[in-house]
Amino acid sequence: MTNPVGASTTLAEFIAASRIEDVPEKVRHEAKRSLLNFFAVALAGATDPVIESAVATLAPFAGAPTSTVIGRSARTDALGAAFLNAISANVFDYDDTHPGTVIHPTAPVAPALFALAETRPLRGADLIHAFILGAEAECRIGNAVSPGHYARGWHITATCGVFGAAVAVAKILGLDARRVRDALGNAASQSCGLVEALGTGAKSLGVGNAARGGLVAALGAAHGIGGPARPLEGIRGFATVTADDPDFGKITDGLGESWEFARNTYKPYPSGVVLHPVTDACLILRRQDGFDVSRIRAILATGHPLLRQRTDRPDVRTGREAQVSLQHTVAAALIDGAAGLAQYSDARVNDPVVKALGAKVGVRDDPFMPVEAARLAITLEDGRVLETLVETAFGSETNPLSDADIEAKLRVLAKQVTGIDAEALIGAVWSLDRAADAGALMAHARP
Amino acid sequence: MTNPVGASTTLAEFIAASRIEDVPEKVRHEAKRSLLNFFAVALAGATDPVIESAVATLAPFAGAPTSTVIGRSARTDALGAAFLNAISANVFDYDDTHPGTVIHPTAPVAPALFALAETRPLRGADLIHAFILGAEAECRIGNAVSPGHYARGWHITATCGVFGAAVAVAKILGLDARRVRDALGNAASQSCGLVEALGTGAKSLGVGNAARGGLVAALGAAHGIGGPARPLEGIRGFATVTADDPDFGKITDGLGESWEFARNTYKPYPSGVVLHPVTDACLILRRQDGFDVSRIRAILATGHPLLRQRTDRPDVRTGREAQVSLQHTVAAALIDGAAGLAQYSDARVNDPVVKALGAKVGVRDDPFMPVEAARLAITLEDGRVLETLVETAFGSETNPLSDADIEAKLRVLAKQVTGIDAEALIGAVWSLDRAADAGALMAHARP
Repeated sequence: MTNPVGASTTLAEFIAASRIEDVPEKVRHEAKRSLLNFFAVALAGATDPVIESAVATLAPFAGAPTSTVIGRSARTDALGAAFLNAISANVFDYDDTHPGTVIHPTAPVAPALFALAETRPLRGADLIHAFILGAEAECRIGNAVSPGHYARGWHITATCGVFGAAVAVAKILGLDARRVRDALGNAASQSCGLVEALGTGAKSLGVGNAARGGLVAALGAAHGIGGPARPLEGIRGFATVTADDPDFGKITDGLGESWEFARNTYKPYPSGVVLHPVTDACLILRRQDGFDVSRIRAILATGHPLLRQRTDRPDVRTGREAQVSLQHTVAAALIDGAAGLAQYSDARVNDPVVKALGAKVGVRDDPFMPVEAARLAITLEDGRVLETLVETAFGSETNPLSDADIEAKLRVLAKQVTGIDAEALIGAVWSLDRAADAGALMAHARP
Repeated sequence: MTNPVGASTTLAEFIAASRIEDVPEKVRHEAKRSLLNFFAVALAGATDPVIESAVATLAPFAGAPTSTVIGRSARTDALGAAFLNAISANVFDYDDTHPGTVIHPTAPVAPALFALAETRPLRGADLIHAFILGAEAECRIGNAVSPGHYARGWHITATCGVFGAAVAVAKILGLDARRVRDALGNAASQSCGLVEALGTGAKSLGVGNAARGGLVAALGAAHGIGGPARPLEGIRGFATVTADDPDFGKITDGLGESWEFARNTYKPYPSGVVLHPVTDACLILRRQDGFDVSRIRAILATGHPLLRQRTDRPDVRTGREAQVSLQHTVAAALIDGAAGLAQYSDARVNDPVVKALGAKVGVRDDPFMPVEAARLAITLEDGRVLETLVETAFGSETNPLSDADIEAKLRVLAKQVTGIDAEALIGAVWSLDRAADAGALMAHARP
């Protein structure tokens, strides 16, 4: 035992002691990038039918309407708003991704904080600080249980997200280390979410509960609901129960020095991340001299075996399914010259022209190619072959979206909701660290 | 694959098709016994500090006060009431127990139903029917994942309870088989609770969420939130992920013919069930000729090794810890001639006289003795030995509490809350199957 105190206590002590001045400027900037991306995808997701269903499910039980439901005019109580906004942000899996764990860090954490911020005075800088600490705890706990946790079937964004939300809210509430650990314990009692549910509305309940449960965990700790001494590392604790061989050093080593959350990445396309290098390749090839989409004989994508295993789906029928279909993604990207939400509508998926081109797409494994790379070869009817290799997909850790790219993503996705002033929202996020009232930002996230 | 349809679909079809006339009278009677016991333990638990903390945590977010919080005058919204009443019923682990799985079946299921019953017209017979189906599903799913599930560290009352609540509410809502399966899927996304949290307030969050999550699961399914086709048996489904070698036949075999829920048992004492035969032995021995509590030299308890492993705790300080202490339980039972809530108060635990007698208690393993048996030998100062063997503990499946015993338990525990008319509540439970308005019963469960 290298850590007789226990990872939970060490983490809680770090959270309780952290000051915003201790957080590097680069990490604080990443937080604002994550929040920009959060509002972008939550505005896009807010029109999804699952949100309508979730709103209708909770409506008869809703409390004081203090907090914004992103993209909707009617507000609801803070627990409900946290639940619904986490769902919106993650419903398309278009949100941010922490490399390695595949956690979407922001969806469970930011909604809990903003929902609470609309119920009490809270400075923007304090919200950003709490957000960073929550996301950092979430990613580190995810590292400790990876890769076995997700492989076993745990939807890691939901299961680890509740710890992130709990830590973030605990920091906002100013809990001491003992109570932060209680919040972790209360989160452990509420951690849930299965990979089996991906692609269905049930997935959203897990992600929504991660945000809501984090609020309950920390508020409960503040009200005296206590947890076990070792909620993460105990013999029946979260990591021990849900991982194969948890590495608790991943939670505690270098706390405050290295920042896992700073590795956060943002998707340029609303599709499975393994499809991103292929999508890049399509957009590159269609600009090459001699490209003619009407004269394609065959298309061959070569990539890491995961590309074939996860996305070789020739016969998809819905936009949601098409988000993990190589055939649809390649066809739509080559025809439209784009890979946005419009390319993943049910109508686009069932367009005969797209289907016909998709039928010409093949896939080949290259076990030596990294996941973020892909090769695409298009054979034209006259025998010519257009070919390109993408070494690092746009949006990956080494080829990240710029600040301007994320702003542009928000501008496009905000159009899903009539009456959103994207520029005002963008400005409010960039200046959040100077805002006296963090909750005021949410006025820009509803019509 | 003996069941190509899948256990989830088979279970859902059974639930959707079940009629109350198909349920044997014995099972319907067991339901009323379980509900009597539920109100008894929930009234006792309602004064626990964790309830005060949970009420305070949820209060700022509470919706329309439609539903009774057992033992309290102020009502709250149905989701909150389900959450709080499940906690009250289970906080002392004094609630019912399903043999084999160690599930406490009623705490997650009944609160969801009664909370809903106060929001809409609902016949008592329909509530009882839904309760039986929910508890049956919960126990069967528990059987399918036992014993590995609990042994790994899953708090099975919470993790399986959410399925029970979801099924029960789905039946009340009249969902078809497809939607019942969606409710199971929505429950799978919310299933949580760790053994590590036992003995702390965090445990209660898991049990409370089982009731609340079941309501959300079924109401969500009714509103169109759908789940995967195989939420229980899928390759990343609940049972596959959380059990060692799930047996899906335990879910589907003999549905409607054999009733797991009919095996339900009720505790005569608010302590770990493994302590019950020892407690019986104490109450028997102190009535023997020549017994003199002031002249005891030594006490030896002999039992299944679990008795020693789970309860050999000489130095406990709180009533909660004492519930699993052999030393305290034996001392208090021999001195007081009782083993009720009064014997598990912090004050009683720290009484020097009780502590002194507890110091004389030893324990020995008998690997051939079943868990529900125990031998107790008391050596007096004059050398005489008083000895007794309890073959089946009071309250176990083969030595059950009578209807009158359960009524008596309710009469005693109802005294924890001033202003409860225990006779009216007992009468309302026994006649619930003839009640036109199931929710009206709850008026007897609040001051």
